[in-house]
Amino acid sequence: MIKAGDDLAALLAKGLEHTRLRLEDGDIVLVCQKVVSKAEGRLVHLGDVEPSPFARNYAARWDKDPRLVEVVLRQTSRIVRNDRGVLIVETGPGWVCANAGVDESNALDDERAILLPVDADASAAKIRAGLRRLTGAEVAVVVTDTFGRPWRDGLTEVCIGIAGINPMLDLRGTKDLGGRELHHTVIAVADELAGAGGLLMEKASGIPAVHVRGYSFEPYEGTAKVLIRPAEADLFR
Amino acid sequence: MIKAGDDLAALLAKGLEHTRLRLEDGDIVLVCQKVVSKAEGRLVHLGDVEPSPFARNYAARWDKDPRLVEVVLRQTSRIVRNDRGVLIVETGPGWVCANAGVDESNALDDERAILLPVDADASAAKIRAGLRRLTGAEVAVVVTDTFGRPWRDGLTEVCIGIAGINPMLDLRGTKDLGGRELHHTVIAVADELAGAGGLLMEKASGIPAVHVRGYSFEPYEGTAKVLIRPAEADLFR
Repeated sequence: MIKAGDDLAALLAKGLEHTRLRLEDGDIVLVCQKVVSKAEGRLVHLGDVEPSPFARNYAARWDKDPRLVEVVLRQTSRIVRNDRGVLIVETGPGWVCANAGVDESNALDDERAILLPVDADASAAKIRAGLRRLTGAEVAVVVTDTFGRPWRDGLTEVCIGIAGINPMLDLRGTKDLGGRELHHTVIAVADELAGAGGLLMEKASGIPAVHVRGYSFEPYEGTAKVLIRPAEADLFR
Repeated sequence: MIKAGDDLAALLAKGLEHTRLRLEDGDIVLVCQKVVSKAEGRLVHLGDVEPSPFARNYAARWDKDPRLVEVVLRQTSRIVRNDRGVLIVETGPGWVCANAGVDESNALDDERAILLPVDADASAAKIRAGLRRLTGAEVAVVVTDTFGRPWRDGLTEVCIGIAGINPMLDLRGTKDLGGRELHHTVIAVADELAGAGGLLMEKASGIPAVHVRGYSFEPYEGTAKVLIRPAEADLFR
C-alpha cells in the first residue's frame, strides 16, 4: 500500500527483483494512476471540503456525497454531461472522463478521495529517471487509468501520461498491402498498451505495474496530451 | 490475401504450424474484421451502387464519393453525428462507429468497399468450431476492428464479436484491497484483449490474427453485444 512520498521507481525496481526478467533498454513499464497519485500525495480529506451550493444541489438530486461532488468540480474545467447522476467532465489537463478521474473505490478510503496526478507526464518521467538510475535501463513509462467511454459498456485502461514513448503510431502516408495510401490511420498505441496492461492489473489484485517487452515503439520526448482530441475536431463536446 | 469463401479456421490452423506454439485449451485467438469480412464475401462493388439524393448531397458537401456514402448509409440504422464530413453512425448490430465500419483503406480496393460481418459472433463461433475440429483445442475467438472514439485522438482495436469468452469482467460486489465493495467496476476485457492484439496486427503488416496464451477468462456462450451501452444509459446519442 503506497503512501505519500514513497519512491515508486525504487519500489518498482525492488519488485522487479522478484521476477525472472531484468529491465532492459526498450522495455516499457506501465504504472497505474492510483499508486502514482498516492505516492504524490494527491489525497483530499473529505472533512476538509466545503461543498459549494451547486455541489449540494447536484448531490441532493442524485443522492451523492456533496463533498465528493465538490472534489470532482474542483478538478473540472468543463462539464461535458451531467445527466442521470453521471458527471462527465474535462479535467485541468484536458482528459475527458467520469468524475474527473476521482476514484470511487479502492482509491477512496473512508474519508479520502484520490485525485489524478497534476502532470502525469512528469510522473512518468520521474519514474523513468529513477528506473534508469537504479537499473541502468532506458525504459519507457506509461501511466494508466481506468476510464469509461461513450457507446460501449465497461471500462478500459487508457494512457494519461508518458515518458520516452510516442503514444501515437502515425501511419498516414504509408501504403497498405494493396498499395493504397493510408490517409487517416493514426493508432493510439499507448492506449492499446494500457489496455493490455489492464488485463493484468486487475482490480484488487494488488498489481500496480506491468513490465512489457518486445513491443517496438517510437522513442519520443513529449506529452500524452496528443491523445486528447482538439476541440475543433471533437464532435462530442 | 483472403478471398470470399476461404476457410479462415483452416488458414489460421495452417499459419499456426509455422509458429512454435500449438493451440491449447484456454488460448484466445484474435482475428481482425477485415479478413473475416473478406472470407464472408462482405464486398460491395461501387459500380453497382446507386446513391440516394441524401448520399449525393452529403457527398457533394464534403467532397466524398457518393457511392461510398450510400454504402455507409445502407449499413446505418441511426446517424449519431454527421458534422464536418465525419459520419458517426449506429450500425445494424448496434455498434457506433465512423462510416458504419466500412473500410476506407486496404479494405477498399479500387472499386470495392468492405462491410462489417453481418453477425461477428457467428463469425467467431465458426472460426472457433473450425479450430476445434482441426486442432482439438477449445479456444475462445474474438473478432476485432479498428475504431475511433470521442475525446481521444487515434484509433484502437476493439471487439465486435466473440465466441467462448465473456467480453466483460464484472467485479461489482467484490471487495477492493481496502475492503470496500466495488459498485461500478465492470471491465471490458474483450476490448483490452483487442487493444493488445492491435499492437501486433499492425496495418500493412499482413498479420490478421494474434494467438493469446495465459489470460484467464470467463467461459461464456453469448454475444459481444453486451459491450454496446444500452440506449437508456447512453449520454451521447
